[in-house]
Amino acid sequence: MIDVSLFGAGQIGSVHAANLARHPGVRLRYIVDPYRPAAERIAAATGAEITDTHTALGDPGVKALVIASATRTHADLTIAAAARGKAVFCEKPIDLDIGRTDECLAAVEKAGIPFQIGFNRRFDPSFRSLKARINAGEIGAVEQVIITSRDPEPETEEALAGGGGVFREMTIHDFDMARFLLGEEPVELFATGSSLVLPYYAKLGEYDTAMFILRTASGRQCHINNSVRAVYGYDQRIEVHGSGGMLRAGNRTLTSVEFSGPKEIATDKPLHFFVERYQESYAAELDHFIDCVTSGKKPAVGASDGRKAMILCEAAIASAKSGRFESVRF
Amino acid sequence: MIDVSLFGAGQIGSVHAANLARHPGVRLRYIVDPYRPAAERIAAATGAEITDTHTALGDPGVKALVIASATRTHADLTIAAAARGKAVFCEKPIDLDIGRTDECLAAVEKAGIPFQIGFNRRFDPSFRSLKARINAGEIGAVEQVIITSRDPEPETEEALAGGGGVFREMTIHDFDMARFLLGEEPVELFATGSSLVLPYYAKLGEYDTAMFILRTASGRQCHINNSVRAVYGYDQRIEVHGSGGMLRAGNRTLTSVEFSGPKEIATDKPLHFFVERYQESYAAELDHFIDCVTSGKKPAVGASDGRKAMILCEAAIASAKSGRFESVRF
Amino acid sequence: MIDVSLFGAGQIGSVHAANLARHPGVRLRYIVDPYRPAAERIAAATGAEITDTHTALGDPGVKALVIASATRTHADLTIAAAARGKAVFCEKPIDLDIGRTDECLAAVEKAGIPFQIGFNRRFDPSFRSLKARINAGEIGAVEQVIITSRDPEPETEEALAGGGGVFREMTIHDFDMARFLLGEEPVELFATGSSLVLPYYAKLGEYDTAMFILRTASGRQCHINNSVRAVYGYDQRIEVHGSGGMLRAGNRTLTSVEFSGPKEIATDKPLHFFVERYQESYAAELDHFIDCVTSGKKPAVGASDGRKAMILCEAAIASAKSGRFESVRF
Amino acid sequence: MIDVSLFGAGQIGSVHAANLARHPGVRLRYIVDPYRPAAERIAAATGAEITDTHTALGDPGVKALVIASATRTHADLTIAAAARGKAVFCEKPIDLDIGRTDECLAAVEKAGIPFQIGFNRRFDPSFRSLKARINAGEIGAVEQVIITSRDPEPETEEALAGGGGVFREMTIHDFDMARFLLGEEPVELFATGSSLVLPYYAKLGEYDTAMFILRTASGRQCHINNSVRAVYGYDQRIEVHGSGGMLRAGNRTLTSVEFSGPKEIATDKPLHFFVERYQESYAAELDHFIDCVTSGKKPAVGASDGRKAMILCEAAIASAKSGRFESVRF
Repeated sequence: MIDVSLFGAGQIGSVHAANLARHPGVRLRYIVDPYRPAAERIAAATGAEITDTHTALGDPGVKALVIASATRTHADLTIAAAARGKAVFCEKPIDLDIGRTDECLAAVEKAGIPFQIGFNRRFDPSFRSLKARINAGEIGAVEQVIITSRDPEPETEEALAGGGGVFREMTIHDFDMARFLLGEEPVELFATGSSLVLPYYAKLGEYDTAMFILRTASGRQCHINNSVRAVYGYDQRIEVHGSGGMLRAGNRTLTSVEFSGPKEIATDKPLHFFVERYQESYAAELDHFIDCVTSGKKPAVGASDGRKAMILCEAAIASAKSGRFESVRF
Repeated sequence: MIDVSLFGAGQIGSVHAANLARHPGVRLRYIVDPYRPAAERIAAATGAEITDTHTALGDPGVKALVIASATRTHADLTIAAAARGKAVFCEKPIDLDIGRTDECLAAVEKAGIPFQIGFNRRFDPSFRSLKARINAGEIGAVEQVIITSRDPEPETEEALAGGGGVFREMTIHDFDMARFLLGEEPVELFATGSSLVLPYYAKLGEYDTAMFILRTASGRQCHINNSVRAVYGYDQRIEVHGSGGMLRAGNRTLTSVEFSGPKEIATDKPLHFFVERYQESYAAELDHFIDCVTSGKKPAVGASDGRKAMILCEAAIASAKSGRFESVRF
Repeated sequence: MIDVSLFGAGQIGSVHAANLARHPGVRLRYIVDPYRPAAERIAAATGAEITDTHTALGDPGVKALVIASATRTHADLTIAAAARGKAVFCEKPIDLDIGRTDECLAAVEKAGIPFQIGFNRRFDPSFRSLKARINAGEIGAVEQVIITSRDPEPETEEALAGGGGVFREMTIHDFDMARFLLGEEPVELFATGSSLVLPYYAKLGEYDTAMFILRTASGRQCHINNSVRAVYGYDQRIEVHGSGGMLRAGNRTLTSVEFSGPKEIATDKPLHFFVERYQESYAAELDHFIDCVTSGKKPAVGASDGRKAMILCEAAIASAKSGRFESVRF
Repeated sequence: MIDVSLFGAGQIGSVHAANLARHPGVRLRYIVDPYRPAAERIAAATGAEITDTHTALGDPGVKALVIASATRTHADLTIAAAARGKAVFCEKPIDLDIGRTDECLAAVEKAGIPFQIGFNRRFDPSFRSLKARINAGEIGAVEQVIITSRDPEPETEEALAGGGGVFREMTIHDFDMARFLLGEEPVELFATGSSLVLPYYAKLGEYDTAMFILRTASGRQCHINNSVRAVYGYDQRIEVHGSGGMLRAGNRTLTSVEFSGPKEIATDKPLHFFVERYQESYAAELDHFIDCVTSGKKPAVGASDGRKAMILCEAAIASAKSGRFESVRF
């Protein structure tokens, strides 16, 4: 039984809180959030104690931190945790700045703490199974990957203005999946973005609709398509083509009910958004993290994965402006 | 927070134990099972105290019983619980004897305790949604129901010999679903059974392969098909035809992964058996029960539902012998 | 190149006319129909000559008859054709009377002419493939068959009153499929019918909604469900369970288009009715017939198949009245 | 009834021959092919007369030409047909050279003949329905198009060396579909190609695996992915995202049979290649052409569509070399 401090009581923090509370090997010891009512909700639901950063970091009984607070706090908390030898599970991105990200990596490495980045999709049962079947050779050598990743609703103008931009907040997950599935590092990246959904995306110099092509040194290719407004729900699909066949993984639905009526056959639309779609992934990634903390194993998705995904974001931002294949230098 | 005693630490008992342990409004106070290692497993996993029937029934702090012990204990425990004013959740069947079942009903009624029978399928998210959509009028008046219900593996000869027979153990769930979906009580039932899978089914006068037709007073019809050996996994499908269309609910799979290869397109087979397939149903039926105990509401599926399903089993046994439509008298 | 006479220029006659006209080895020589405008349409489309029964039967150049005229004419035409040594393709049923059917069989047998009954579904590409895969042992021994067979629209009261009844006109096809798929002859049959769709079905002593169970000597079972009003289109599905797995064949749609919208995912409903659904079957059954006429092979589905299906219809009519398993005596 | 001359008795020529022979308003008058046995096969099957180019072009009774001969003959035949006022159906591409293509366009325009280019996919029932539903506003404004287009088998080295290259022979169809579906002309195009399948693709400076992104002036985007070796069969899918939803069209299979076995659920792989997959499209495009010839209507897909698709091919070839968004100038 290990004691864990949770930073951040927002939407993702609440998901992590529930998964930590349910974990037989964990006591959710502290919850830290400047917004008191959110912290109180989690405290009431899980028995965690509301405290401040100082205590949640400093209590020598705490073995691990789960960081789901604002992006700007990730690096400081990680570095402080590393200094104290505590394990860290950190939501992506580590930091919007690559230099600061590198400092985190150095601190983590030096301290030798387990560090896991919250690329939850790697833990989705379907995507994980698909990947295992690639590894088992079912489709031979990977040649092309197609990632469909579309949100059901745009960010508010305020959230968009205050965030790291669509590529760094949304596509970053797809870039990680591209690396996960290609089996080779991308060396070139092409991006194009438009603002077709809401004028404030354009106004803020952002894209609400985007397409990408990544390419590895041996010539493997990956396409990603993004939209911030899929009216039919969160669209998260993967398609991998290899020399011996194709593997696909699709969306999930609430029920298997099918209606046959005078006009059409109708089935459920996909689960609404990430909390529903990736419910099992969020649980599984924390199970993996706790397992690593307990056993001393290195998490399967670490700080350098977070860093590389950020570098792909930077290349994408550059490419969308330059209109050319940008080299990726990790 | 209410205290609950659990009787039975077998396969279903363990499922209930986990759901009770996870429920925020419940303390799993006692576990009772003559087979000590099974009780110990549940005690270790949930913090429940291992005790005897006397204590688990008699402790005045215990508000509710969950009965997942051997069928022959269901009636005694129910009657004893009723006498003490404790709520009862009881696995089906209440008893293999209709007379004894009636005594239970009388005791439950007299005591006015909440009583819920473990017809978990009514709580399956897909089946529940399908039923709600029938109720909402989506397919007009129900005309025909088709229930596919096939187990992935037969019972052992020993279990078969010691049990209540295939209709009372397996088809009973389908009979309840037929009543649930037809929207009218069946008045006639036809059954035919064969032994095609394993010779000991025939030897024991049992059927491993069976088909049924039920009919209501207004002429609505329901077909059920059963097998004890579906090599592709637990096959649990429902199809309801009405004047305005059809609603279907199908099997569930572990992943959404699809493989396209040189010979075929392959997807996951259905989840293996009831523990996997009805995981959400088991949780939801206990949530409902606890909600009823707490709020004083009457459970949606009660003792008379258990009794009626048993009467349909008796009619089926008679029909499989007589070769004719047997009248159903509830 | 063989000359063929076609009797009947109605809906099915027109389908056969088009398939005969397109066949490279056939000249559609004569069309016979008392309703002149129908005959004229076919003559114009195919170049066939409009003539009377006498010529169409008697012309020594004519090698084969395709009989798609009213049911009451089938037996007379078949016997006359047999007497002249001409091959016969005849729509089902041969005759509504079993005695008369037996006379036809005797005439056909004595003359040694190729005779094929129009059980087109055996030639449906999916059903044929499914059957071939059963024969190849893919699912081991057949145990249960489930046949869904639902028309998109009822017959008019006039047509219903003038016809042979729903079992003899509609279910007869399903009875043939049951025999085709069970791999053993049915020995018992149970039927129940209701009138839930249109009052004139009840008024005429008919059923618009029916269910059946057939059973073979070794205990194999088959369920059929029928309705005359599936608002979502012609519903023609087959499901065969064997010791080694299940094979299913489903409906066909006009397009593969899928719409994902704010409420649901919607796909095409099934093709409307038999002319659309069994388009390929109608062509393939005539190809097979012409091949038999040319090569001297015996058609795969002959007069005794027509007779046996009729006997199953009689058993069904009896069972729906008696409420019991009726013995089937071929 | 109009007389048609067919040039080319190869694979596509044979498909057109069969569709012309079956058309009630057409007489397939002449077949021209330097390879005599191929011409003889078509002559035997259809009754067409084998002749030379001079007669097939010059016979004043001939109203229309169907050109399915070698690419290098397309322009000469088209210009000669235009000079004689005969309608032309021409397989793509018009010519591998844009200058020569422009001469054809000028000749066609000046003569005012009906000219149709063989972009058969526009006539696929599913793609056509999808497009009609876009036009009907079902998904609002188009935002992104994803085209999956993968051949089941590579070209031989000889054919590859002798042809116009993968983009001009294969992707050209996808470029036409992109234009068809985007609802706006592409103004920029990005392409990347690899040789992962067979070394002779690389040796010949060709790509066997490629990805593309097209962009219109308003920012609509289209992704295309290509491979010359999809071991599971011809993979031809379309996905269109709009402000109000998504429309998809998928592959077609020979049967609807589904097998459930101990390891998986297996269904048919897609139809093997274009002759099977686009059978209905080939018939429908010729029906449309003959209708235009007869009625004087302008074909829905004409010479300028052929020209624009070629210009997109040129941009793709340039982009795959330059690694940048190439401007498209029609």
